[in-house]
Amino acid sequence: SISQDIDHILETQSALSVDLGGTNLRVAIICMQGKIVKKYAQPNPRTFEARMHLLLKMCSDAMRDAVSLNCRILGVGVSTGGRVNPQEGVVLHSTKLVPEWSSVNLRTPISDALHLPVWVDNDGNCAALAERKFGHGKGVEDFVTIITGTGIGGGIIHNSELIHGSSFCAAELGHIMVSLEGPECSCGSRGCIEAYASGQALQREAKRLHDEDLLKVEGMDMKLSEPITAAHLISAAKLGNSKANAVLNRACTALGVGIVNILHVVNPSLVILSGVLASYYETPVQHIITERALISAQGIKVVTSDLEEPALLGAASMVLDYATRRTY
Amino acid sequence: SISQDIDHILETQSALSVDLGGTNLRVAIICMQGKIVKKYAQPNPRTFEARMHLLLKMCSDAMRDAVSLNCRILGVGVSTGGRVNPQEGVVLHSTKLVPEWSSVNLRTPISDALHLPVWVDNDGNCAALAERKFGHGKGVEDFVTIITGTGIGGGIIHNSELIHGSSFCAAELGHIMVSLEGPECSCGSRGCIEAYASGQALQREAKRLHDEDLLKVEGMDMKLSEPITAAHLISAAKLGNSKANAVLNRACTALGVGIVNILHVVNPSLVILSGVLASYYETPVQHIITERALISAQGIKVVTSDLEEPALLGAASMVLDYATRRTY
Ligand SMILES: [Ca+2]
Ligand SMILES: [Ca+2]
Ligand SMILES: [Zn+2]
Ligand SMILES: [Zn+2]
Repeated sequence: SISQDIDHILETQSALSVDLGGTNLRVAIICMQGKIVKKYAQPNPRTFEARMHLLLKMCSDAMRDAVSLNCRILGVGVSTGGRVNPQEGVVLHSTKLVPEWSSVNLRTPISDALHLPVWVDNDGNCAALAERKFGHGKGVEDFVTIITGTGIGGGIIHNSELIHGSSFCAAELGHIMVSLEGPECSCGSRGCIEAYASGQALQREAKRLHDEDLLKVEGMDMKLSEPITAAHLISAAKLGNSKANAVLNRACTALGVGIVNILHVVNPSLVILSGVLASYYETPVQHIITERALISAQGIKVVTSDLEEPALLGAASMVLDYATRRTY
Repeated sequence: SISQDIDHILETQSALSVDLGGTNLRVAIICMQGKIVKKYAQPNPRTFEARMHLLLKMCSDAMRDAVSLNCRILGVGVSTGGRVNPQEGVVLHSTKLVPEWSSVNLRTPISDALHLPVWVDNDGNCAALAERKFGHGKGVEDFVTIITGTGIGGGIIHNSELIHGSSFCAAELGHIMVSLEGPECSCGSRGCIEAYASGQALQREAKRLHDEDLLKVEGMDMKLSEPITAAHLISAAKLGNSKANAVLNRACTALGVGIVNILHVVNPSLVILSGVLASYYETPVQHIITERALISAQGIKVVTSDLEEPALLGAASMVLDYATRRTY
């Protein structure tokens, strides 16, 4: 009927977006313009069964809400930690950060449950797609994005397209090693920038200092019951704690050297930092580039993302870009 | 006349190839099939004036020989250390390995002297072009080549094309850092794989051991007048010198970790090692990949180049590929 057609036109073309991170499992309804209409978050379960169950439950709930929000869901985009074969919609392999998450076909169960097309890619790659469509990467042919969250993820755009690599292992930027020895990493190696500069690495160092009673300094606001995080390390350093400062300096140097390595491999024109620690790292990383990059690579720009949710937005962009190409 | 036309047909379409390395300046006449018809080598002068003078002299001599060898030179391909803008034929910037070699236009003087088209690219990039046309890279869409010579150079082929980068600084693989501290490098930074594993780095360590009287061991053939090189280090290690062995182990680990970093950035399907030390490094590098790469990246193949002269052949390929496209 005519009234149904009008209803249809009035609906906003949208994507259901899923982000499976080292800490949280998030779902969002995101419309064509990149607006996050509604967002859901739960701690990411540590077992495969519980995770898949929660994921499908959160998606179904969001689908129900989408109807009442007048959002027409065109498909599901999934951002996940680990190496992903995006052609098959399969997580090939993950580190300890997301346990029980190897050889997992995500496309089939989600598509079967929701009767929608499903796209899947690595979280860092999704963040790069988000920057390309909505962020600082708009119109930039060659850029790299690095997310510092629980772990460190990355994505590389070359000639306006993602580099996935021959075994979907490109842009695993968190596992660039900047030390032959160095701290152990979730991947089984050591000296990776993730093991120096991720949220988890800083939390580990903060806890270590706290256990040795070396974290808290005069003037620092810290409740007994509070879990120790990277934020405590940063505030201790600001208040003059030299041990906290040394840990953070080492993290900045490691991340900076890792980024210089990226410059000497793919030499993008822009590096976009995202994640909670991005703005903290921006200036030190620029400093390390000046100190340690080849002269020809020093013109690179380093910026902090202004996107609220790069992984979720990038996952949505896989749906929205496809729908745009198909529809228009 | 008819006889002139026949002469012309009987000539072999060839390239004049130049390689400006950290040690030698070489010129070669290379024919369409990749055969090196004639080769010339001199120590690479340490000043700009002397180097340009010798380069043009060697090219003119080779042009004269080409006539008598019945080789029709279609153009000049130049392989050089340093960052190169191949569109302009200009060396942008070099490290101390090739001194007085920044902001050097090579195309204009060579083209003016020889009245031929001139192509210029970085030595590592040329090596990659050579592997693509004549070597293990034939038909491989994504591969990386690493040359260990006086320094360490590299080239990256992605989707069958070189990655040059936004400021022609991509694939500067010798300056991937694997240590926050580490030995000083010719580029001004420290901890680069070139500073651990290049011929020059091993020579430096061999000399250091020799000066401390720790190099020569029972059964080692070494004349007093002989200059100390990496080869002495390798033969000392083979004869049980544990200090020489430790230096080489560290070099292998550094190179291996640097290559794992490349795998985690662009994830090629193949790594080709070339240069004098390539076959020495092949097995240890494979071992480090097994130890330190993400599971998804471990399927990578590592091989030693079977090309006699990758840089010269790659420089020639720029001429020959262009001529092929134009002629046929
Ligand atoms: Ca990635
Ligand atoms: Ca190169
Ligand atoms: Zn790691
Ligand atoms: Zn260096």
